[in-house]
Amino acid sequence: MNILYDEEIDGVLHKVDRADLLAELCQRLPDLLILDRAEDLHPYECDGLAAYRTLPLLVVLPECLEQVETILRLCHARGVPVVARGAGTGLSGGALPLAQGVLLVMARFKNILEMNPNARRARVQPGVRNLAISEAAAPYGLYYAPDPSSQIACSIGGNVAENAGGVHCLKYGLTVHNVLKLEVLSMEGERMTLGADALDAPGFDLLALFNGSEGLLGIVTEVSVKLLPKPTVARVLMASFDSVDKAGRAVAEIIAAGIIPGGLEMMDKLAIQAAEDFIHAGYPIEAEAILLCELDGVEVDVAEDIERVRALLDQAGATAVSLARDDAERALFWAGRKNAFPAVGRMSPDYYCMDGTIPRRELANVLRGTASLSAQYGLRVANVFHAGDGNMHPLILFDANEPGALQKAEELGARILELCVAVGGTITGEHGVGREKINQMCVQFNSDELSFFHAVKAAFDGEGLLNPGKNIPTLRRCAEHGAMHVHHGKLPFPELERF
Amino acid sequence: MNILYDEEIDGVLHKVDRADLLAELCQRLPDLLILDRAEDLHPYECDGLAAYRTLPLLVVLPECLEQVETILRLCHARGVPVVARGAGTGLSGGALPLAQGVLLVMARFKNILEMNPNARRARVQPGVRNLAISEAAAPYGLYYAPDPSSQIACSIGGNVAENAGGVHCLKYGLTVHNVLKLEVLSMEGERMTLGADALDAPGFDLLALFNGSEGLLGIVTEVSVKLLPKPTVARVLMASFDSVDKAGRAVAEIIAAGIIPGGLEMMDKLAIQAAEDFIHAGYPIEAEAILLCELDGVEVDVAEDIERVRALLDQAGATAVSLARDDAERALFWAGRKNAFPAVGRMSPDYYCMDGTIPRRELANVLRGTASLSAQYGLRVANVFHAGDGNMHPLILFDANEPGALQKAEELGARILELCVAVGGTITGEHGVGREKINQMCVQFNSDELSFFHAVKAAFDGEGLLNPGKNIPTLRRCAEHGAMHVHHGKLPFPELERF
Repeated sequence: MNILYDEEIDGVLHKVDRADLLAELCQRLPDLLILDRAEDLHPYECDGLAAYRTLPLLVVLPECLEQVETILRLCHARGVPVVARGAGTGLSGGALPLAQGVLLVMARFKNILEMNPNARRARVQPGVRNLAISEAAAPYGLYYAPDPSSQIACSIGGNVAENAGGVHCLKYGLTVHNVLKLEVLSMEGERMTLGADALDAPGFDLLALFNGSEGLLGIVTEVSVKLLPKPTVARVLMASFDSVDKAGRAVAEIIAAGIIPGGLEMMDKLAIQAAEDFIHAGYPIEAEAILLCELDGVEVDVAEDIERVRALLDQAGATAVSLARDDAERALFWAGRKNAFPAVGRMSPDYYCMDGTIPRRELANVLRGTASLSAQYGLRVANVFHAGDGNMHPLILFDANEPGALQKAEELGARILELCVAVGGTITGEHGVGREKINQMCVQFNSDELSFFHAVKAAFDGEGLLNPGKNIPTLRRCAEHGAMHVHHGKLPFPELERF
Repeated sequence: MNILYDEEIDGVLHKVDRADLLAELCQRLPDLLILDRAEDLHPYECDGLAAYRTLPLLVVLPECLEQVETILRLCHARGVPVVARGAGTGLSGGALPLAQGVLLVMARFKNILEMNPNARRARVQPGVRNLAISEAAAPYGLYYAPDPSSQIACSIGGNVAENAGGVHCLKYGLTVHNVLKLEVLSMEGERMTLGADALDAPGFDLLALFNGSEGLLGIVTEVSVKLLPKPTVARVLMASFDSVDKAGRAVAEIIAAGIIPGGLEMMDKLAIQAAEDFIHAGYPIEAEAILLCELDGVEVDVAEDIERVRALLDQAGATAVSLARDDAERALFWAGRKNAFPAVGRMSPDYYCMDGTIPRRELANVLRGTASLSAQYGLRVANVFHAGDGNMHPLILFDANEPGALQKAEELGARILELCVAVGGTITGEHGVGREKINQMCVQFNSDELSFFHAVKAAFDGEGLLNPGKNIPTLRRCAEHGAMHVHHGKLPFPELERF
């Protein structure tokens, strides 16, 4: 099933002589692991966005830089598209294969090359799991800060490609703020070093440009990340509210008070109930919303901030506030939040996870809008937020067995994202655009802006062979999609007045 | 005097009909302030790097977006190069005019458009002074963190162009880490919004790409910056050392202990003596090096960190450690450091300020190398560092009235920068490449990497009209310069063994 992507619009209908390509790969790289039988290709037909599936032309699993170089040069010479993939946990279809493209799986690049506790840096291969970096740094009292929910499985190369976030990115930043240097290969197999071992690097900031570029500019072959000292203390407060408005206002007050929580998360009633039913985290199932506010740092600081936050929560009208007694209860509070997605999955045969951001002040407004759209489409929506960042994850519940239900869920999701753009937000906070949100990019950006994206793409990959059809829509796609560009809230969202 | 730049090599020998251009500007923009008489052009012939001077073809001082658009479109149509300039305080000649180019001065864009204390953001025009943002934010207990020494005069647009730093960027980041959104105009006058009002933005990270792009990609017309709560307490320790090695080790120990000072600065004997003679800050003039370590945050935290840092300084062999008694003494300690450049200027008819970065572990090594080069060239070098960042500012003392002295100083500076690259560092920390370090870029990057920079440049400015001859050297320049690309220390610096 590959329901949304029209290869013809994007002009990537490459015609590849598969047998010939396979023969040449086998001849040039006798040691390369190549998968070409349908039963071996099936596990790779999707990433974490399982609603979109395509059987790749071939899968290659290189083990060393030279193999990757040879693969890229060979594909470049033959005009064969290449889609890079790490652990395949991405939620926007960024690693969705192409039927006429090679899937370049970097999972075997899994060595930690250097731990430098003095410089507080680690140098790793792109297939290293996010959590494995923190595990290797733990003996030095250090850790790698960005913590996507998939951190046990996702790889750092994929984190770079999608500019991954996590519950702690409010305080510690996204992947782009925690990556110091990249080694990359261009589609023509040229090696580049982006960033440096020292502060800053001259020239254009290609390091930042590659973060979040979703495999469209080059292949990441090595990643140097920043390590941070582990906070000595972390405590978490849980506050209940009888309305999402009040919870939203509490978020604004905490941030306005100059407090920077390690994490500040919000869940609405449906998400609370789903999580509690699954994890038994002690969540108040009658509440309309809860906030989880983690404060980390040194003891005295955290103790002081806990009291300030507690006072702000009371003022904002929290019906109950409780402090996790110990690390076990703290872990339990977070377990509910971190398992919210599978918990919602238990309530409904299928769910569709969105990822939009909004200015924090618009939180209550967008929740009302989402509720109205939910009623209009007749589909339940559970809301989970990185509230401190204004990063929303509405989960749309549906049953894929009902004819047309997936399409309806996707349409509702698209409408929610357009609502985010209309209030000055964006269509993704941390999951990326991938294949999933390619049409919403037409809403986010005008044609001049998209043209500059294409020009940047062409600067690195003139033939458009790296992950075509993802991240940046063609102007033709935007024309066919018929989307109205909503420029930073200046054009009204047609339904915004009604909320 | 325009001694180093060879326009012919860079192929920017545009031939412009000045009278015709002036007439058209006057006709199309009757309200535009245009300077065209030599006496009016002279004040604009250089920026903060006064050794490089060129009289611009014309100077324009637009007041509104529409004027900038018209100027750009007109220059684009006629193939006239455009150099943008803010306050002109830059130290690498990034705003050096072209004899055949229009100097676009953005100084009249000086309005603060919006202060949003709840979102902790300010939206300002590019000509607003760095310090003026903090002054406007002060009533809300907020400030803008990056603080270049020129912050009283430099403008935020120029800070973006050069990705400016400051003594506090160790803890609070460079400009790129504190800018949230930009409005820019392309050379063809197209408007673009980079970044967003919400966390992150989809597509390629053009916001980061524009930071530090030195006016080569577009003209910044509006800047949204992050505001931070002012730390409640700041204290500063001064430590004396009888060798720079020991001071360098103390820096490494402080960072390795997980302490992140607000500022961590080092000065060597010559810089100490110059500063003390000028400011009477109470610096120990017999010391070989001093460290200034500022700790900021909440009271209890700062008190605890002061004791930890004091213990580390003692262990590292400090001969004396003193804590500034009060804010007045703290200001005095910093005044010595912040006035180190003019102080050195009092010791010598001229000085040349360099700006390289190195991995912190190389600090002692590079200081020894610098001392050896200083002896070799017979020119004194005073060293001032953002030590925590590994960002060095060697000040080369010379007398421009001695024939060949400037050239010798520049050659010594170039050698010091090459030494930085050889140990894995970079040729600029915060001052930019500009015109000054264009040749050293050939040492920092290989031709593949430079080619990608040019491709990115072409994506935004295909005709190469925006600030040609700055930041990114042509491959031909690198060939003529004959520089050996030193790839991250892998090729030995010929003299490194001897240090």
